[in-house]
Amino acid sequence: MQITGRRFLITGGASLVGSHLAEELLDQGAAEVVIYDNLSFGAESALAHLKGRKGLTIRRGDVMKLHDLIDAMQGVDGAFSFAAFMTLPMSRDPWTGLDVNIRGHQNLLEACRVAAAKKIIFASSSAAYGYGLQGTITEDTPFHTKGVPPAAVIYGATKIIGEQLCADYGAKYGLDWAVLRFSTVYGERQHYRAANALYIIEAYDRVAKGEPPVVYGDGAETKDFVYAGDVARACRMAMGADVTRETVNISGGKEITTKALAELVLRLTGSNLKVEHRDPASGGVRLTSAHAFHYDNGKAKRVLGWEPKVPIEEGVRRLIEWRKANPPA
Amino acid sequence: MQITGRRFLITGGASLVGSHLAEELLDQGAAEVVIYDNLSFGAESALAHLKGRKGLTIRRGDVMKLHDLIDAMQGVDGAFSFAAFMTLPMSRDPWTGLDVNIRGHQNLLEACRVAAAKKIIFASSSAAYGYGLQGTITEDTPFHTKGVPPAAVIYGATKIIGEQLCADYGAKYGLDWAVLRFSTVYGERQHYRAANALYIIEAYDRVAKGEPPVVYGDGAETKDFVYAGDVARACRMAMGADVTRETVNISGGKEITTKALAELVLRLTGSNLKVEHRDPASGGVRLTSAHAFHYDNGKAKRVLGWEPKVPIEEGVRRLIEWRKANPPA
Repeated sequence: MQITGRRFLITGGASLVGSHLAEELLDQGAAEVVIYDNLSFGAESALAHLKGRKGLTIRRGDVMKLHDLIDAMQGVDGAFSFAAFMTLPMSRDPWTGLDVNIRGHQNLLEACRVAAAKKIIFASSSAAYGYGLQGTITEDTPFHTKGVPPAAVIYGATKIIGEQLCADYGAKYGLDWAVLRFSTVYGERQHYRAANALYIIEAYDRVAKGEPPVVYGDGAETKDFVYAGDVARACRMAMGADVTRETVNISGGKEITTKALAELVLRLTGSNLKVEHRDPASGGVRLTSAHAFHYDNGKAKRVLGWEPKVPIEEGVRRLIEWRKANPPA
Repeated sequence: MQITGRRFLITGGASLVGSHLAEELLDQGAAEVVIYDNLSFGAESALAHLKGRKGLTIRRGDVMKLHDLIDAMQGVDGAFSFAAFMTLPMSRDPWTGLDVNIRGHQNLLEACRVAAAKKIIFASSSAAYGYGLQGTITEDTPFHTKGVPPAAVIYGATKIIGEQLCADYGAKYGLDWAVLRFSTVYGERQHYRAANALYIIEAYDRVAKGEPPVVYGDGAETKDFVYAGDVARACRMAMGADVTRETVNISGGKEITTKALAELVLRLTGSNLKVEHRDPASGGVRLTSAHAFHYDNGKAKRVLGWEPKVPIEEGVRRLIEWRKANPPA
């Protein structure tokens, strides 16, 4: 479906990816972008950069309220299912987390059906593969749970269920869908709720206070980071492309060690501080991947024509610029 | 904990495994066995063989009602979490299925905490590994989803979440737990809700009507069946053993092809009929495993001292005897 002139709704849109996606859709000529968010984790401040943009509607609503979602979906052509508890809040409150990640997404699918929307894009995650992986990870890699904290496995399994609920609605009701499995997303409007993303924002916030960035263990474990603007573009392309019933990895495609990341923050801030190593056991819910892995995004290029554009140095620079202008409360 | 003199509760107990387990626990001297079941899938008839047994309590209740579960758990020493939507009802009603399999189990964990029960045994499933597996499947085998119907993946993922909720309650509140991953359970009080178990009961019900048993495809795919009485003994041993925080496969450990199974039913009934082969695509939700696999139960022997005792010929004979006395309505 073309983006120009169409109306879209983003659940959980007042946050990192949603705020980038809203901008992307408006830039591409969308007639309206409805941000549907209960603002429990999200905040209107994440949309401050879009203030006054024609077509942006912020609607305070909860994905657990099916009637309200159905109402919000009237006249909407396509929906983005982004509302979710990530690992850290899931660890604190698995009751609400399971509600939001499963029933909330199911409610949006039902609202799409009732309102005759054409397509849904589901924000899945590399967590749908589990953790502790090694080698090349493609869309067919099975789910690993060994040695993973319960909240992380639960989060990953809610993504598996969310993906299959899309497939179920596609098969039963003909709803078009695409599942995008994001690696660790970072960028402006970064929050503190995803375990992996802490590596950047925590490092910067410490450096800004004159404290050394902390790395748990030797810092040799690798992560795949993808810039939020690149992710937003992938979401827009998945909605706009003549593609349905596909599950696609959206990743930076280049691994970086947690130590190199902390050193990048030090370099970009011109700091003379040195990385501080701490016992991994002291770090709370951390998602370690002792083995090197490559989070393959070849299918995204083949199916969507998408590739990441923003290198990590540039993305982290933008994140830091934003953080300088928006220091922690 | 010893079984003698203790009180236990089984959610979803008015069914296949629950009915065997209730008998097993009473035989071992349990003071009380509370069957907690909303009788939507289960039926009191599944407990008819225990009528008049001292210590058996049938309580009609719904796992979605936390207050009622907490009430039912007063004075109970250990709980068995069996209430679940299996694959076929999950396909028809994923809304209620997700509620029961996730929130219902979570409610029982919470009721255990509130009522200070000591231990919970969670009925997980080989579905926690997905389908389409090959080779030897141990407790560390990751979850496969490729080519699997949505409802089956959703069912498997609810089991993954259920397992991790046990781990979460163990870590946060000190509740002892064991997870048992059953292969395909069969035996007296067999029902029609689990895709794999259909192979036996459907075959027999057709033969009893003078119709040939149906095999989808060439019948070369293998299944692992485990007798319900053996499963019940594993559950009782897991509750009674000084074992906690363990996840254990409970399987027959011997594969049988679907064709050999249909032929076994023909042999045991003395029928002259021949197996009828049908197009796999005509069979509804079927969980095919094109590859041979071995569902390893070595850990059950190491950790619980459990091994299956009833060979498939004897188990199917018992199922058929029961079915003769309890023909379909």
